[in-house]
Amino acid sequence: MLARRMDRVTASAIMELIKTTAAGSYISFASGLPDPALFPAETLATLTEQTLTQDGRAALQYGPAEGYPPLREAVAELLRRRGFRATPDHVLITNGSQQALDLAARLLLNPGDTVALENPSYLAAVQAFDSYEARYRTLPLDEAGMCLDTLPTLLAGRPRLLYTLPNFQNPTGLTLSPERRQRLAELAAGAGVLVLEDDAYHDLSYEGEAPQPVCSLAENPAAIYTGTFSKTVAPGLRVGYLCAAPPLVERLAQLKQITDLHTGSLTQRVVYRYITDGHLEPGIEILRQTYRARRDVMLAALDAELSDCAEWTRPRGGMFVWVRLPPGCRAGEILKRALALGVVFVPGSSFHPESGGENTLRLNFVSSTEEKIRAGIPLLARAIREVLA
Amino acid sequence: MLARRMDRVTASAIMELIKTTAAGSYISFASGLPDPALFPAETLATLTEQTLTQDGRAALQYGPAEGYPPLREAVAELLRRRGFRATPDHVLITNGSQQALDLAARLLLNPGDTVALENPSYLAAVQAFDSYEARYRTLPLDEAGMCLDTLPTLLAGRPRLLYTLPNFQNPTGLTLSPERRQRLAELAAGAGVLVLEDDAYHDLSYEGEAPQPVCSLAENPAAIYTGTFSKTVAPGLRVGYLCAAPPLVERLAQLKQITDLHTGSLTQRVVYRYITDGHLEPGIEILRQTYRARRDVMLAALDAELSDCAEWTRPRGGMFVWVRLPPGCRAGEILKRALALGVVFVPGSSFHPESGGENTLRLNFVSSTEEKIRAGIPLLARAIREVLA
Repeated sequence: MLARRMDRVTASAIMELIKTTAAGSYISFASGLPDPALFPAETLATLTEQTLTQDGRAALQYGPAEGYPPLREAVAELLRRRGFRATPDHVLITNGSQQALDLAARLLLNPGDTVALENPSYLAAVQAFDSYEARYRTLPLDEAGMCLDTLPTLLAGRPRLLYTLPNFQNPTGLTLSPERRQRLAELAAGAGVLVLEDDAYHDLSYEGEAPQPVCSLAENPAAIYTGTFSKTVAPGLRVGYLCAAPPLVERLAQLKQITDLHTGSLTQRVVYRYITDGHLEPGIEILRQTYRARRDVMLAALDAELSDCAEWTRPRGGMFVWVRLPPGCRAGEILKRALALGVVFVPGSSFHPESGGENTLRLNFVSSTEEKIRAGIPLLARAIREVLA
Repeated sequence: MLARRMDRVTASAIMELIKTTAAGSYISFASGLPDPALFPAETLATLTEQTLTQDGRAALQYGPAEGYPPLREAVAELLRRRGFRATPDHVLITNGSQQALDLAARLLLNPGDTVALENPSYLAAVQAFDSYEARYRTLPLDEAGMCLDTLPTLLAGRPRLLYTLPNFQNPTGLTLSPERRQRLAELAAGAGVLVLEDDAYHDLSYEGEAPQPVCSLAENPAAIYTGTFSKTVAPGLRVGYLCAAPPLVERLAQLKQITDLHTGSLTQRVVYRYITDGHLEPGIEILRQTYRARRDVMLAALDAELSDCAEWTRPRGGMFVWVRLPPGCRAGEILKRALALGVVFVPGSSFHPESGGENTLRLNFVSSTEEKIRAGIPLLARAIREVLA
């Protein structure tokens, strides 16, 4: 009775885990959430009040599918600082970057089309691709991000799109090196394969600025770049964006119109004021300081507890550390022990579009305080040792 | 290079017309917009301030795909007053009812599937169905709404869904009679055909309460009912909902998750407070009084100006009057003259999923003041007479 695309749309195991453990008093490294204690609630209240007083009619009315024009311009300005030659016509405002990814997939994917992507990759993007009945070709990751050795062969097979998270990847925390970025951009442009670049974590960079986006590095008209204010302002506002050549933006805006007419008029204006009143950069600086310190605490705790039996990434930004256990050690087993000890994480197999990664796990280092991280990692280590024993 | 579904996704002629004429000093009967002068901006500013002060962390954080639980309960209560046996598990919160329609179509439609619908029908729903490569079987309308004579035959052909706007239909303003509602509900349930009922205008009822929704009248587990706060609070918030059996809601929530994770956490809470603090009903009463008076002014002006050469609907609610001109009189021609005279409307052919309706036009009677309606209808009449002459 349902459409065929629903065959591959299922409940997310991660979401179920997070729901189940939300009520308890767990130390959670499981979620993909930023720390709500850092949300600028007071500033946003003031800006909302100003918006509704000064511009209430437009802020509560329907608006254009492409987004609030001044916000499109403000985003174009942010993008120019990242190396894009962007105008407002290159920008579509979306409900977070999840919607940008879904619209891109809806624009491009016929059933059976191939998506090339990192293994592991961002789960909710894979779920969107699943719903368009995509097939996958995967690329492994190492310390410098996506490995490009097999990329020319893979591109020769003409995948419909190549999906990548080059900065502080979810789930691994890995970052694509500048050299590989250049090569990836050139190879994709040369092969005429569309690059869908997910840069949700760009501003959460803890060692200087993030490297320049792949999509800004080569003249490839087939490129869609996605970003969001979910990590830098607040996810509950649901304001993100994509950047693409204007003819693609026009087609994506037609889909956006069908999907939900447009992103909230009020929240777009509040985010616009947040940027132009100068709150964005100081806000990002606070996030960087706080999250950098938490990352350092987590890495130190892992060093102290697990260096004899596991290895993990040392992310230069973002929200996640990726832990690899000895082969045969199953993260699902560890999760059962960890839950009993009061700590939660997400088994890494969830992030593999096909299969694998049973001996890996993802740890969110931003949503817990340093104190909780210090308390939680030894519990996790205990759970791992129990399973290893 | 784009997915096949894009073949039928195009720019909306209506949206282009509205964009083109937004800048000028036209008297516009073209839009689908409510009157922004009636938006409760001050109340919403107060409620937003309260929400961010008392509940800022949750209001700015990610939330469940299904929606903010107290809002789901508040919507269930509204639905129970309309005759549904609804619990929060029957409710999914969406970005306006447009997203509810799109999610329903995404859940149900394979390429080539048949959608049964009224002719004419709501354009943006048809555009969504187009994007899922639907085919159409249409049902004519008369003064009592959708004509059911051909419905048994049509249902025997097993369309994938039947889409209907029984209250104050967009674009015609027509309302399905209680007798036909009962019959429609029973026939669809008997045939096992899913009813997708779009009740966006329910509360904009100017002659007593709107009749009971079709989906509440028969035990049909295959029913999806959509509603919105766009017409009763403010469209710029993008908060709507759907009501369906819990197993369907669960599947739709999986799609919602993929699409954009969830509807804005802040705006959902603001709408929740608006309802539970008792603003919704007095707000609706003001809208009813104002819009009823404007409808009456428009109908009186049409009576005075056009009764010898056209006929039109007398809507019991909603936002639109539908005008039918003598056969052969093309609304597209009239629009050109009307634009020259400073008045805008939408030609009715836009709302026909296949073709036809060249001699019809849609007039929005809520977005202009009584004064503008009194000034605009004679200009429209002049344009019509010029073309008829």
